[in-house]
Amino acid sequence: MCARFTQALACEFVATVIFIFIVLGSAFKWPLQLPSVLQISMAFGLTIGTLVQAFGHVSGTHVNPAVTIAYFVGNQISIVRSVLYVVLQLLGAITGAGIIYSVTPKDVRHTLALNDLTYGTNPGEALVVEIILTFSVVMCIFSATDKRRTESRGNAALSIGLAVTMAHLIGIYYTGCSLNPARSFGPAVIMGKFSGAHWVFWLGPIFGASVASVVYNYLLYPQKLSIGERL
Amino acid sequence: MCARFTQALACEFVATVIFIFIVLGSAFKWPLQLPSVLQISMAFGLTIGTLVQAFGHVSGTHVNPAVTIAYFVGNQISIVRSVLYVVLQLLGAITGAGIIYSVTPKDVRHTLALNDLTYGTNPGEALVVEIILTFSVVMCIFSATDKRRTESRGNAALSIGLAVTMAHLIGIYYTGCSLNPARSFGPAVIMGKFSGAHWVFWLGPIFGASVASVVYNYLLYPQKLSIGERL
Amino acid sequence: MCARFTQALACEFVATVIFIFIVLGSAFKWPLQLPSVLQISMAFGLTIGTLVQAFGHVSGTHVNPAVTIAYFVGNQISIVRSVLYVVLQLLGAITGAGIIYSVTPKDVRHTLALNDLTYGTNPGEALVVEIILTFSVVMCIFSATDKRRTESRGNAALSIGLAVTMAHLIGIYYTGCSLNPARSFGPAVIMGKFSGAHWVFWLGPIFGASVASVVYNYLLYPQKLSIGERL
Amino acid sequence: MCARFTQALACEFVATVIFIFIVLGSAFKWPLQLPSVLQISMAFGLTIGTLVQAFGHVSGTHVNPAVTIAYFVGNQISIVRSVLYVVLQLLGAITGAGIIYSVTPKDVRHTLALNDLTYGTNPGEALVVEIILTFSVVMCIFSATDKRRTESRGNAALSIGLAVTMAHLIGIYYTGCSLNPARSFGPAVIMGKFSGAHWVFWLGPIFGASVASVVYNYLLYPQKLSIGERL
Repeated sequence: MCARFTQALACEFVATVIFIFIVLGSAFKWPLQLPSVLQISMAFGLTIGTLVQAFGHVSGTHVNPAVTIAYFVGNQISIVRSVLYVVLQLLGAITGAGIIYSVTPKDVRHTLALNDLTYGTNPGEALVVEIILTFSVVMCIFSATDKRRTESRGNAALSIGLAVTMAHLIGIYYTGCSLNPARSFGPAVIMGKFSGAHWVFWLGPIFGASVASVVYNYLLYPQKLSIGERL
Repeated sequence: MCARFTQALACEFVATVIFIFIVLGSAFKWPLQLPSVLQISMAFGLTIGTLVQAFGHVSGTHVNPAVTIAYFVGNQISIVRSVLYVVLQLLGAITGAGIIYSVTPKDVRHTLALNDLTYGTNPGEALVVEIILTFSVVMCIFSATDKRRTESRGNAALSIGLAVTMAHLIGIYYTGCSLNPARSFGPAVIMGKFSGAHWVFWLGPIFGASVASVVYNYLLYPQKLSIGERL
Repeated sequence: MCARFTQALACEFVATVIFIFIVLGSAFKWPLQLPSVLQISMAFGLTIGTLVQAFGHVSGTHVNPAVTIAYFVGNQISIVRSVLYVVLQLLGAITGAGIIYSVTPKDVRHTLALNDLTYGTNPGEALVVEIILTFSVVMCIFSATDKRRTESRGNAALSIGLAVTMAHLIGIYYTGCSLNPARSFGPAVIMGKFSGAHWVFWLGPIFGASVASVVYNYLLYPQKLSIGERL
Repeated sequence: MCARFTQALACEFVATVIFIFIVLGSAFKWPLQLPSVLQISMAFGLTIGTLVQAFGHVSGTHVNPAVTIAYFVGNQISIVRSVLYVVLQLLGAITGAGIIYSVTPKDVRHTLALNDLTYGTNPGEALVVEIILTFSVVMCIFSATDKRRTESRGNAALSIGLAVTMAHLIGIYYTGCSLNPARSFGPAVIMGKFSGAHWVFWLGPIFGASVASVVYNYLLYPQKLSIGERL
């Protein structure tokens, strides 16, 4: 039991390091060939899909404080696990951002793919976009991984990954697409640069994910887990 | 039972809001980087795939009056459910179009990704294209979700989403690709602009979907549901 | 039994019409935005994936004489079914090509996406490419649909579709990528234009598919079907 | 038993020939239309996905010495099988590279899509990238194919293929993305050109894959196979 918990923590850290490493590196403004919005969106989605397939059965592969908080709000994981996951996700994001920073030429890494408002988007608009997109992705996560559903749900890891791709196909244009406070926090720490709208990338995803959790776990499919049954 | 029905109606509305919000926003002529036809097609398909995975087990995630009518024609849902779904889909489409309108810079949202005949396509040609494409997508929907099939059908949500992507890869060039009267209606209401060919985006999808329903539910796999067994 | 056979024939015809309609239309040199090789490859693959999901349980969705011949070589379908499938595939391809021809502006449809050797490829080289690619796709078809395999094969329709996408990602550069005599034959009939290398698009796919059938059905997984058990 | 082993060896060779043939051919700098990084990444991933679906149940479709060594390190295959697989993978890579060389115009095949450090990447940085990416892909391979997992893993072949796509979406920018010594070795032999960093494409993938094997097979999911139970 205890070993399993330690493994989950380790996997959550490693998965977040890999996630941040790959998605930042694939989103730089490479002079060889500028990645298109579709290409960046696929990189984010396929990385999540791969990590959920690889580590999901150990830690759940949240790699995202908003997702962990949503599971906590839904009474599916304990407060201890939640806090440790979030801490490890933030440390993992800083580590992943640090590694990709150190292996990438300076003129390529530029601002390290920081999230920020794009030209023409104000914080209120960005908040709306982040809330709606994170809500949609987290609804898909709860639904695709609900063991009580008996019909074929297919490849849950792929469904979740492609939901993340979907969100980036629109979100990149408004905010660079966060959905994930750790994804915004890691590069900001390494670059020592927090934009005035950094709070949007915490409030938006956490609020959107929490609403999804309430809708799924209390309104649509209420479940009563005793404290012992929670992870 | 009654709660389940209310939940289905709510989910159908919310899913349509999200669908229209995401697909319009990802199809604008963004100055940062013009989305390619492939990118837009992926956005439509992955949004449908994500919403079917997220809400399909509650409402079926039709998000499309043509699909709802096809289920009604196939005697699989009641007239009451059909009418309410269509009303909520249209209201959802207007709401989704309104939200994306309000968070997007004016010079980007342009005509709000309205469906219209492209240069060189006449209404008759557009009708043929919309009928064939909607027929194909709806055949895939009935087949991928048929619980009587015992062989592995895999991830039905993904199959349906990618069928929508397929249709857009050709349809965008002819009509912007509707397949869905609500998708055409929502932005038209918000912009107050109905093109002379707007009827094509009602007749084409509804006719194509209905033919698919007759073929699947009466010719290929007839099933007799009593009124109580229908949804 | 007899009704089922008639349905299979009808589905094979309709599926081939839709296949040719969509893939030709999505591969034209559209002035609005030239489709990339990736976009065209996705259109071919997702169309196959959608049609296999939609019609596969009725007819098998061969939509390709080379695939039908491979099933016959593998002793899995009767001579009568084989001949009728091929005839209907060719008629379907002509019909599909005719419909897309009639709804598309003349300056767009151009040569109707005819297969031909690209600059720098000679017939022998084209033959090698078509044989290897068709062999690979047909090995995937037999393997993904083999009911004797008990491990999870996932979404067979999607695997087959994405194998077709794979083949186009390289094949388009050499020959436009046929893999399928019907896909080459249909537009050639409508345009009344058979290139000197047209035979390559019959010999290559049929030979590659037949070799795959021998390898799979006789060498790797021999099965003895009595005449009554064949389709 | 013996026939099965011979079949596995033959399939491993054929699969590697096809893999190298397709991925090199789809990555050339084609003058008709330069393939994007996304397009090349999809070609690599879909080829792996297709070959795993087609040959995986016979040989496991490693097509990669690093993967074979990872299985050996995890005590899942014998030393004899491991050595023969690696030899056949290298021969297959040379053969595949030779075939694509012989059917492609000289000005297109150029350097035969050799792996090399891109401008601005030094060997140490390249090593870090190759290790992290191969580690991630191989974790996904072990997890997606672990028969002891009872929850739905969906289409394992597709998950593995899309993990390969993910890795290329970032790796191409640093090293052309190897992940696989055979993929680097084959074209180098045919071109008679080994870059000074060629060792990176052996050490990086083999080290990353071996670490993944230790983590999965000893730390996370230890299993004791007797010598007779190994393949």
